[in-house]
Amino acid sequence: MQIQFLGTGAGMPSKERNTSSIAFKLLEERGSIWLFDCGEATQHQILHTTVKPRKIDKIFITHLHGDHIFGLPGFLSSRSFLGGEDVLTIYGPAGLQQWIEQTLQLSKTHLTYPIEFVEVKDGIVFEDEKFTVRALSLQHVVPCFGYRIEQKPMQGELLIDKALALGVPKGPLLGQLKAGHSVKLEDGTVVESSDVTSPPQPGFTVAILGDTKYCENSIRLAQNADVVVHEATFDHSTIELAGKYGHATNTEAAKIAKEAQARHLLLNHISARFLKHDLIPFLEEAKAIFENSYLANDFSQYEWRKNELLEIE
Amino acid sequence: MQIQFLGTGAGMPSKERNTSSIAFKLLEERGSIWLFDCGEATQHQILHTTVKPRKIDKIFITHLHGDHIFGLPGFLSSRSFLGGEDVLTIYGPAGLQQWIEQTLQLSKTHLTYPIEFVEVKDGIVFEDEKFTVRALSLQHVVPCFGYRIEQKPMQGELLIDKALALGVPKGPLLGQLKAGHSVKLEDGTVVESSDVTSPPQPGFTVAILGDTKYCENSIRLAQNADVVVHEATFDHSTIELAGKYGHATNTEAAKIAKEAQARHLLLNHISARFLKHDLIPFLEEAKAIFENSYLANDFSQYEWRKNELLEIE
Ligand SMILES: [Zn+2]
Ligand SMILES: [Zn+2]
Repeated sequence: MQIQFLGTGAGMPSKERNTSSIAFKLLEERGSIWLFDCGEATQHQILHTTVKPRKIDKIFITHLHGDHIFGLPGFLSSRSFLGGEDVLTIYGPAGLQQWIEQTLQLSKTHLTYPIEFVEVKDGIVFEDEKFTVRALSLQHVVPCFGYRIEQKPMQGELLIDKALALGVPKGPLLGQLKAGHSVKLEDGTVVESSDVTSPPQPGFTVAILGDTKYCENSIRLAQNADVVVHEATFDHSTIELAGKYGHATNTEAAKIAKEAQARHLLLNHISARFLKHDLIPFLEEAKAIFENSYLANDFSQYEWRKNELLEIE
Repeated sequence: MQIQFLGTGAGMPSKERNTSSIAFKLLEERGSIWLFDCGEATQHQILHTTVKPRKIDKIFITHLHGDHIFGLPGFLSSRSFLGGEDVLTIYGPAGLQQWIEQTLQLSKTHLTYPIEFVEVKDGIVFEDEKFTVRALSLQHVVPCFGYRIEQKPMQGELLIDKALALGVPKGPLLGQLKAGHSVKLEDGTVVESSDVTSPPQPGFTVAILGDTKYCENSIRLAQNADVVVHEATFDHSTIELAGKYGHATNTEAAKIAKEAQARHLLLNHISARFLKHDLIPFLEEAKAIFENSYLANDFSQYEWRKNELLEIE
């Protein structure tokens, strides 16, 4: 799993930071990529990455502010131009589907693939044998969601040598053991799956939160998460503005991560008011509260590898 | 007057060319800028120019394909963020107003300035004492317009020395002469305006055409124009595709300019199929038919100065 930031700004694009979008890459786990939000020019940002639009099979929208959705029509259209044929599922607040349909119709955009819409409400919005995605409402000036992505524990590996040593013959019995079932050999011996498989590996948990004030649901979504992506539109000196506009500060984001006992915090959605040299103390303020804090920049990428988070090129 | 290309691509953005938008700068003539089309990320392109969004007081949309309008919601929103307060007039085909209003409402975008919408039909869409803008339908796969912008002849300069020599006293009579009226001096002498003013200067004419096949109305709009901006999505070898998709080739654009007896042709809306080295013969093909042909690139800028067109930095 890799998290690549495509846009880390707030409100409007600047030369340094585009409006919001995150590529959540599950290429090893699912052969696909999920997008979280799709601000204007997300497709332009993608041109500077290795992301292939047709590999994106789910888009999760946190809320309907323009800096989080105005890149959707163009992205959808280009995914079609580029030969995308597989269904794309879009998760988002009420109203999103109608707007996308109206926009595609107005612009006579005929897609080469079907879109499935899921109107997000608090609770599980997606689940399969490998992943669960939960949504909870945050506190912004419009309805806004945070998402918690949980990878389910992965089955242990089959220890073939051990199985053979116990007398299990090559063939279908090995598959049953791998799948977690015990088997009975011809001589009557019972071999338990746990005898010949490594223990299940825990999956990762990532919380990606939309725009929000400091709130309880952020802590719930971030509880024990390996990675929390939290907005930090303001800093501690501008905390009144944060409250007024339904946003959080760097230190509030750090408090959320700390109270949730999360492992890593990625600060995102950074206002253009902060210049490059401001961002050093900006990050330090957060680290004073939650040591494992990092500042997201456009195109920065983090990889989850062997239970650790690494910043990669 | 200056014409700066903000996006010269076709259909979808590439690293080299953004989707369509042209800044038509009338800073000397009106203190404002007009935009022709507003593809996604037009506001991002503007960040790399001297254009100030609040100086843009009119946007003319040629047609409703996404690569010509998907940058509008973000541009409108950012013009507001950046303190624009003056009315913005948007000219475009039927359907545009409703989509913009729905989009601003969905995204809870509250603008600091009013928008005036003008639904474009064939004929004069704007006129004041200095300019006339006419629209005519082109031939694309959806309703699409071309615009002809005519600057009205500018009053000649008052030749003060000549007026004083003829006995006109300093004061209001000079103003009347400048305004084109004849005046009677105290001694009964009549002085004609034309005696003491230089002849009126002709204004410029620019035709900016939307996506279109080769068609008669393009020639009408481009008739005797100083500058014609014409799409050239295809080249002569791909002329069948051009016809199929309602587009023109480089050589068709050149024929339009030639038949219209225009003075300069700027080839725009260039498909990403043409790589950098393809564009040399691409331009040569056009020049073989119409010598004064130029290829528009993103950010290239042309200035109309002393009745000549100059490419400037
Ligand atoms: Zn935002
Ligand atoms: Zn086009």
